[in-house]
Amino acid sequence: MAEVELRDGERIDDLECSGLKIIQDPKRFCFGMDAVLLSGFAKVPEGGEVVDYCTGTGIIPILMSAKTKAKHFTCVELQPESADMANRSILLNDLQERLTLVEANLLDAASFIPAGSMDVVTVNPPYLKEGSGIVNPSSAKAIARHELSCSLMDILQESARALKSGGHFYMVHRPFRLAEILSSMQKVHLEPKRIRFVYPRVDAEPVMLLVEGMKGAGSGMVVEKPLIIYDENGQYTKELKEDYKY
Amino acid sequence: MAEVELRDGERIDDLECSGLKIIQDPKRFCFGMDAVLLSGFAKVPEGGEVVDYCTGTGIIPILMSAKTKAKHFTCVELQPESADMANRSILLNDLQERLTLVEANLLDAASFIPAGSMDVVTVNPPYLKEGSGIVNPSSAKAIARHELSCSLMDILQESARALKSGGHFYMVHRPFRLAEILSSMQKVHLEPKRIRFVYPRVDAEPVMLLVEGMKGAGSGMVVEKPLIIYDENGQYTKELKEDYKY
Repeated sequence: MAEVELRDGERIDDLECSGLKIIQDPKRFCFGMDAVLLSGFAKVPEGGEVVDYCTGTGIIPILMSAKTKAKHFTCVELQPESADMANRSILLNDLQERLTLVEANLLDAASFIPAGSMDVVTVNPPYLKEGSGIVNPSSAKAIARHELSCSLMDILQESARALKSGGHFYMVHRPFRLAEILSSMQKVHLEPKRIRFVYPRVDAEPVMLLVEGMKGAGSGMVVEKPLIIYDENGQYTKELKEDYKY
Repeated sequence: MAEVELRDGERIDDLECSGLKIIQDPKRFCFGMDAVLLSGFAKVPEGGEVVDYCTGTGIIPILMSAKTKAKHFTCVELQPESADMANRSILLNDLQERLTLVEANLLDAASFIPAGSMDVVTVNPPYLKEGSGIVNPSSAKAIARHELSCSLMDILQESARALKSGGHFYMVHRPFRLAEILSSMQKVHLEPKRIRFVYPRVDAEPVMLLVEGMKGAGSGMVVEKPLIIYDENGQYTKELKEDYKY
């Protein structure tokens, strides 16, 4: 494992997955269960080309490098400090042959991702609309949480552009935007094919959704069985630990 | 309770709800859990005007006559035999002052339901697209199950026409059409506000969805906690029995 320099406030966390580690700065933004669940929900064909938008510290492609047999991941991040951390985590895990970090706005991705070139897109986007809720005064967290730099529709349009026909799109998002998510996916021909709701407990509203779309597919989809986080004793459920390796 | 005539093959079933009964013909179509759950999911303001499309034997408005304080229900049914049964069930339950059966295609509803006049729409529509699956050779069941007489979009457009601004739309449907349902509701400005998935067991895919839309509302919705039908012992769950009175 390569030695990398840590900047002020950063730490290295063990991902408890194939010896992988990640550099994070708790003052900025640390990955959450969202990213881990998406990395388990997404499926990649062997040798597939993947792009992860809004990659942040690179958590999703780093986990998927172990969980899938993808050939290569393009990791796109707008914020220089996050991009720099992701780059050093790639080196730290000796993944530079499979993961490439591009510091860019995804609205400019046409300059480095040819149209129709990707088998899979993954994205853990900002969940909140610009101007909704309390905008976090720390800019790094605000950009990660609010649609300040790109909207949901921007992300979907870029994903549809990058994917091959029949390619797959995977996103984690919040249930309160369900109708907008599904109708917007249909508008850009990323037809929703599979969705899973993540419930904290069996008697609670879901806090997340995992959705899969397929470029150019016909309508008709599967709503999967519920993914429950905590059992009746307040422990992580077996499925969360085994299937999603949380 | 009025005496009503039964036709060949018909029977009277006790709804186990406020002494209500219903006339059904097992060779045609008997109501299912779908209708009972929708009658518990829908909310009606006191004194509200309700229309139930695709009413069949009238099961939904008959149950809602006891479960809500609606002023009046217009029950629309295309098939003469079902309409006739619904009419006799209305008499059987002495509900003729609150329930009115109209034998008509909902595409013609403008002739008897003024635009913007309804507080609530309920509908348990045919679930399958015309030409999909195996079409039941018995025409009554085929019309109840397949979109032979009206499409999902027909139903949504008519519902949006009939509702007041701010009025509520309630539908039970199948999860495989989730994306189409939500995007079509948005197209006709019946904004999805609440959805609940009905899972047979906690570890199974949902078999039904209950959805609420609001005419003219802004985007943003709630996905409710899962509604589970059977507990681990194969018994109906407490919620199904108590809240939905199944």
